[in-house]
Amino acid sequence: MRLIFSLASIFLATGVHAQSLTLTSPDGQLVVVVSDDNNQPTYQVSLNDKLLIDNSRLGLAFKQQGEYSQGFNIAKSTRSRTNTTWVQPWGEQKTIRDNHQQMTVKFGRGEQHFSVNFKAFNDGVGFRYEVAKQPNMGESVDIVNEYTEFVIDKGDKAHAWWIPARGWNRYEYIYSSTPLHQAAHVHTPFTVKHASGVHLSIHEAALVDYASMTLNQRRNGTLKADLTPWSDGVLVKKKAGFTTPWRTIQVAKTAIDLVNSNLILNLNEPNKLDDVSWVKPGKYVGIWWGMHIGENTWGSGDKHGATTNETIRYMDFAAENGFDGVLVEGWNIGWDGSWFHNGDVFNFAKPYDDFDLAKVAKHGKSKGVRLIGHHETSGSVTNYREQMDAAYDLYQAHGVTQIKTGYVADGGDIKRVDENGITRHEWHDGQFMVNEYLHSITEAAKRNISINTHEPIKDTGLRRTYPNWISREGARGQEFNAWGTPPNPPEHIATLAFTRMLAGPMDFTPGIFDLGFNGLEGVNRPQTTLAKQLALYVVLYSPIQMAADLPRNYLAKPKAFQFIKDVPTDWQQSIALDGEVGEFVAIARQQRDSQDWFVGAVSDKHARELTISLDFLTKGKQYQAQIYRDGSKANWKSNPYDMVIENKMVAASDVLTIKLATSGGVAIRFKALD
Amino acid sequence: MRLIFSLASIFLATGVHAQSLTLTSPDGQLVVVVSDDNNQPTYQVSLNDKLLIDNSRLGLAFKQQGEYSQGFNIAKSTRSRTNTTWVQPWGEQKTIRDNHQQMTVKFGRGEQHFSVNFKAFNDGVGFRYEVAKQPNMGESVDIVNEYTEFVIDKGDKAHAWWIPARGWNRYEYIYSSTPLHQAAHVHTPFTVKHASGVHLSIHEAALVDYASMTLNQRRNGTLKADLTPWSDGVLVKKKAGFTTPWRTIQVAKTAIDLVNSNLILNLNEPNKLDDVSWVKPGKYVGIWWGMHIGENTWGSGDKHGATTNETIRYMDFAAENGFDGVLVEGWNIGWDGSWFHNGDVFNFAKPYDDFDLAKVAKHGKSKGVRLIGHHETSGSVTNYREQMDAAYDLYQAHGVTQIKTGYVADGGDIKRVDENGITRHEWHDGQFMVNEYLHSITEAAKRNISINTHEPIKDTGLRRTYPNWISREGARGQEFNAWGTPPNPPEHIATLAFTRMLAGPMDFTPGIFDLGFNGLEGVNRPQTTLAKQLALYVVLYSPIQMAADLPRNYLAKPKAFQFIKDVPTDWQQSIALDGEVGEFVAIARQQRDSQDWFVGAVSDKHARELTISLDFLTKGKQYQAQIYRDGSKANWKSNPYDMVIENKMVAASDVLTIKLATSGGVAIRFKALD
Repeated sequence: MRLIFSLASIFLATGVHAQSLTLTSPDGQLVVVVSDDNNQPTYQVSLNDKLLIDNSRLGLAFKQQGEYSQGFNIAKSTRSRTNTTWVQPWGEQKTIRDNHQQMTVKFGRGEQHFSVNFKAFNDGVGFRYEVAKQPNMGESVDIVNEYTEFVIDKGDKAHAWWIPARGWNRYEYIYSSTPLHQAAHVHTPFTVKHASGVHLSIHEAALVDYASMTLNQRRNGTLKADLTPWSDGVLVKKKAGFTTPWRTIQVAKTAIDLVNSNLILNLNEPNKLDDVSWVKPGKYVGIWWGMHIGENTWGSGDKHGATTNETIRYMDFAAENGFDGVLVEGWNIGWDGSWFHNGDVFNFAKPYDDFDLAKVAKHGKSKGVRLIGHHETSGSVTNYREQMDAAYDLYQAHGVTQIKTGYVADGGDIKRVDENGITRHEWHDGQFMVNEYLHSITEAAKRNISINTHEPIKDTGLRRTYPNWISREGARGQEFNAWGTPPNPPEHIATLAFTRMLAGPMDFTPGIFDLGFNGLEGVNRPQTTLAKQLALYVVLYSPIQMAADLPRNYLAKPKAFQFIKDVPTDWQQSIALDGEVGEFVAIARQQRDSQDWFVGAVSDKHARELTISLDFLTKGKQYQAQIYRDGSKANWKSNPYDMVIENKMVAASDVLTIKLATSGGVAIRFKALD
Repeated sequence: MRLIFSLASIFLATGVHAQSLTLTSPDGQLVVVVSDDNNQPTYQVSLNDKLLIDNSRLGLAFKQQGEYSQGFNIAKSTRSRTNTTWVQPWGEQKTIRDNHQQMTVKFGRGEQHFSVNFKAFNDGVGFRYEVAKQPNMGESVDIVNEYTEFVIDKGDKAHAWWIPARGWNRYEYIYSSTPLHQAAHVHTPFTVKHASGVHLSIHEAALVDYASMTLNQRRNGTLKADLTPWSDGVLVKKKAGFTTPWRTIQVAKTAIDLVNSNLILNLNEPNKLDDVSWVKPGKYVGIWWGMHIGENTWGSGDKHGATTNETIRYMDFAAENGFDGVLVEGWNIGWDGSWFHNGDVFNFAKPYDDFDLAKVAKHGKSKGVRLIGHHETSGSVTNYREQMDAAYDLYQAHGVTQIKTGYVADGGDIKRVDENGITRHEWHDGQFMVNEYLHSITEAAKRNISINTHEPIKDTGLRRTYPNWISREGARGQEFNAWGTPPNPPEHIATLAFTRMLAGPMDFTPGIFDLGFNGLEGVNRPQTTLAKQLALYVVLYSPIQMAADLPRNYLAKPKAFQFIKDVPTDWQQSIALDGEVGEFVAIARQQRDSQDWFVGAVSDKHARELTISLDFLTKGKQYQAQIYRDGSKANWKSNPYDMVIENKMVAASDVLTIKLATSGGVAIRFKALD
C-alpha cells in the first residue's frame, strides 16, 4: 500500500505553525518563504503570488553527527541588500549587475545548528548551507545525505527538458523533452516549464570542493538533491566549518529570460587570479575533424594527423584567415593501441617522431598563430597529475597559452590510485574530480595558460573566479554528427540554448561546411543547413570558437567562410530575442568595444518565419546588415547548401522577417556605418 | 567527445585470448562462456548458438582492498552435476525438479582471488560470487562496487517492462513498457524481450545479508548491478569469507515459459525451519477495504473500523463462507494523528478501547476462524524491534498464527536509531532492511507465526528456506484502485504475471465486487470486469488470498461469490497456458492432492478470444467445467458486471474457446467426476 492520503493527515494533525520568514527580490515580484513548521526546515518560492516551488525540505546528514534537518527550528536570521555592478574580463556581457536581497537563516536543535543563506534576485533564487564549527562536531564531517528538495507546484502539469544523471556517457546525451514526472534522475541545469508557463532552471553555482548535485524525482514533482558519491559511497568529505555550493532556481516569465539571466555568475566569487590580460578569447582551427571522419588517426602511421608538416599547413591557413590558434590532437605518445579505459599509456612530454614541437611552436610564433595544446587523459587522473607540472612547463616553454584537456572514460570509471596505492574508480562529477578539474585550472594559471576542458565537470560559473577556465564541453558536440548513433537531432541546438548553455560557455566546435562527408543521405552528418552552421557561432556562446571543418572545405565556400572570419567571440552585451525550448532561438550580441552587432537564430525540424525587431541597435545609426540565410528551397535533409547572402541597409526602427528552413538558421552581421 | 569507436580499438589492440570455459545446461541448449580476455573476468550466455548476453563484466570492489575485477585471471575451475526433486510444503507446485550443471571459476591476481559459481539450468542461469578469507584481507570487507553486468545482445532491438529503482514509492509503480534503452535505473525482476523473441528475466535469488541488486543502464544495452546503499554510502558490509546472492537470468523461448520456470526457488536453500505443518495456506476477509474507500478509519472515532463488534461480525461472515482468517487493521494505538514518517507512535501491545483482543480471539476460535494480526510500523523499525518480542508473544497467546506487517514510508526514509543513538534513514531494499525483514520472519517462526509482509523487500525465493514467509506485497495492489492516481490500468495484471510474479507470491487482495463505489464513471475504481476479479484468484499466485470487498457486496452477488468460496490457494501443479507480457495471460492450476483443476485468464484493454486446449486434464476423466466468463455485452468501462456462469461437461480432448471483454477475464473450476 502507498497511502497517499496519509500525507494530508500530517498537516491536519500537526499544523503547528512555528515560524516563517519572507525574503523578496528587489523588484518585489519573487518571494521566498522559509519555515520550520513541524520542526522541519523548508522553503518555498512564488512569483507574483503564483506558487512555483512548494514547501521543500532543507538539511544535510553527516556520517558522524546524523541528521541536520528534521527537528531543527529557526533560531536567528540576518538580512542584507546588494546592488552593484562588476566587469567580466571576457564574456557574453561586459558589465553585470548584481542586485539582490539576502537573508541568512540559522536553524538549531540544542547545541547543533546550521544556516541557510538565501539570495533573492529578480531573475531567481540561490541558497547555500553554512555549517559552522560547533560543540561535539569532530574534525571530519562526511556528508551522507543532502535533503534539499525542489517541489514543483502542480508538477503533474509541468514539462521538462533533461539528460540522465549517473550514466556512462557523462553529459553527452540527446535531451529528453517529457512531462516532468518522467524525469527520474537528471543532471542540472534542469529546465522546467511550470503549469503557469513560467520557466524554471534548477542548477548550482560555485561548485568547489563538493560533489555535483543531480536531481532525483521522489514523489512525482519532488526533485531531491542526489550528490554524486565517492567510490567508497560517502557523498562529500569536509572538515568542520564549511559552506556548500549555491543551489539555484532561475525563474523566467518566458523561455528567453532564462538565457538573459546572470544569476549563476552573480553567485560566484570574484576573480582570484588578479591580472588576467593573458587570457585571450579567439578563434581556432585544428587537426581534429579529420580523425572523427576517419581521414586521419590520433595514433601513428600513414594517416597520422599530428605531423609537423600538417601542423605548419594549418598554421599558415590560420594566419591567412585570421585565426589565432591551431589545436593539434594526437601529437603525443600513447594513442597507439588500447588507450580507452587505459590512460596510463599517455606521455605528455613525448611527441611522436613525426611531430617537432619546437619547430611548429616557432613557426606559429612567426605567423602570429599559437599552438593550442592537447592533453587526453582517458580518465587516468593519477597519471596526468604525476606529469602535470612538467607537461604545463613544457607547453609554457613553447609559448602555448591554451590547452584542451580530455577525460574520456565511462561515467564512474575515472581511474585514480589512492594514498594506499589502491586503484579507485570515481565519477566525473564527484567531489574528487570536482577538485581535480579545478587543480588543473589553478596549475595552468600559474603559467598564464587557459584551459578548455572536455569531458568536464559541468559549468557552475567558475569562469568568474578563474577566468582562465576559458571553455569546456559537457554536452553532445559536433563530433556526434561524425559517428554518433544517432547524430544530434534538428532540435539539439534549440534545446542546448535553454539547458546546457545556461551553465556557461561550450566548445561545441561549429562550422562544418561539408555536410555530406558520408553523402547527404548518410545517417551520420550534421542534421542542419549550412546557414545554421554559421548561426551556431552566435547562438552557442564561447570565448573561443573553432572552425571545425577541414581547410579545403572552407576554401571551397569562401563567401560563407567570410562570416566565420568576421564573427567575434567576445561581447559587449547579449540579448536573447525570441525562442522556445527545443523549437527555435534567436540571439543578438554586440561585439565588445564596438558598435557592430551580430544575430544568430536556429530552428528545429520545422521551417518557420522569424520576425526580428532591430531595436537593440543604436537609435539613429545606420547599419549594413550582412545576412546569411537559408535559400527558399533549403531544407536540412536534401538541400542544406541553399543559402542566400545579401546586404541590406537597416536601422533600429526596422524589423527583419526571415525564413528558416527545416533545421535551418540565419547569421547576420550588423556593420555600423559612420 | 564520446569516442564510441575507441571501444573497437580495444579489441583490435588487445585481443589477447587468455582462457575461456564453457558450461551448458542439461539439455545442451543454453551455453555460458566464462573468460578472462584482456585480464577482465566476463561471462556470456547464448541459447542454441543465439547470443543473448554478450561479454559482461564480473567483479567487486572493496573499500579496504580495492578492485577485484580488472587484472584478475582464471586460476582454477571445478564442476558438478545435480538432478533431484524436492517438495514444497505449500506452493504453486508440489514437487520441483532441480536439474542443473555447475561450474565454479576461481579468478586470481597474485594472492588475491575470488570465485564465481555458475549454475546452468534448462530455464536459465544463476551465478554468485564467493570471496574466501585470504591474506591481507582484514576482518571488515565493505563492498563499494559490484561490477556485474548484463549486456543485452542487440540491445537496440530489445523491449523491456520495468519499474524505476531508488524511487520514493518503493515497488509501487505502474510498469513501463518501452524500448530497452529507455530503462535507466530499474528494479528486478526485469523482463526483457530479446530481438530474437526470446524472453529474459534478470533478477536475484536468496537475497540474505546483502543489498538488493537494482540495474542501471550504462552504455545502451548494458545493465550494471547497482546495489542499494546504506545511509553512510557503503553498499554492503561483510566479514571476510562470504558469498553473495545469486544473480539470475531466466531464459524462455516464449513469455509463458518465464512463468513456468522454477529457477529462483532452485537457487534458494532448503527449508531451515524443519516441521512447518503450522504454516497454513488459506483465504481471509478483513477490516481493510472500508478504510481505503473512506467508509471507515484506522484511527479512533465514529468510523473506527477495528471494533470488537465489527470484528465479530466479520468472523461470523468468514465462518459462514469458508474463510479461515479475519485481518483487522487499525486495532492498536497510534493511528490517530500524524503517523506517516512518524511510526514511533505505534504501540503493538495496546488495543483501542473499543477493540477487545481477548474477546475477538476467543470468538474466532469458537468459530474456527483465526484473527490475523496486523503491525504497521510506518518504517520506524527501531520502534518495532523494541516491541517485537512482546508483540509476537501477545498474538501467540491469543492464537494468532499469521501477521500482516507494514513498512509504509517513502523510499530511503526507513527510520532507525543506530548504536550511537543517531537517527538514520535507510532504503527498504538496502542491506540493513534486508536483514530486518528476515529478522521478523525468524522471530515469528519461533512462535509458529507466518508473516505477510507489506511494503516488503522484493521476493527472491526465500519462502523455500523460511516457509512461514507466507506472502508479501511489493507491487501496486488493489488499494490503488481505491485512491491511486491513476488507478491500476487494464494491462496491470497481464504485466504483473510476467514481472513481479516471477519473484514469488503476492498478496494483491483481489475480489472487489462493487466496482462502482465511486460510480462506474469515477476515475478510481478497479478498471476490470467482475469476471476478471474472479480470475485474479488463479492468475496471481498466493497461498493466502483475501476476499477484499465488504461482506455486503459479496452477499449481493452470491453466484459470483461461489467461485471465491470454491477456489483453493494451494496447488499440486501450475501451468501457464498462453499469454504475452502486458497483453493477456491464461494459467491452469491443479488443486493440491485433488483431481480438480482451475483456470484463470485476464486481458488488457483489448477484448480478445481465448482458445484453451484442456490437455492438462487427466486423460479419460470427465470434468464439470464451472465457467465464470464475461457476457457478450461486457466491457470494463460501462458494463463490467455482465457475466455468464455456465456448466459444461468436458474432457482432456476438448478445446474451450472463450471471449474476454476489454480488461476482462474468465475463471473456471474443473470439477473431476468419478
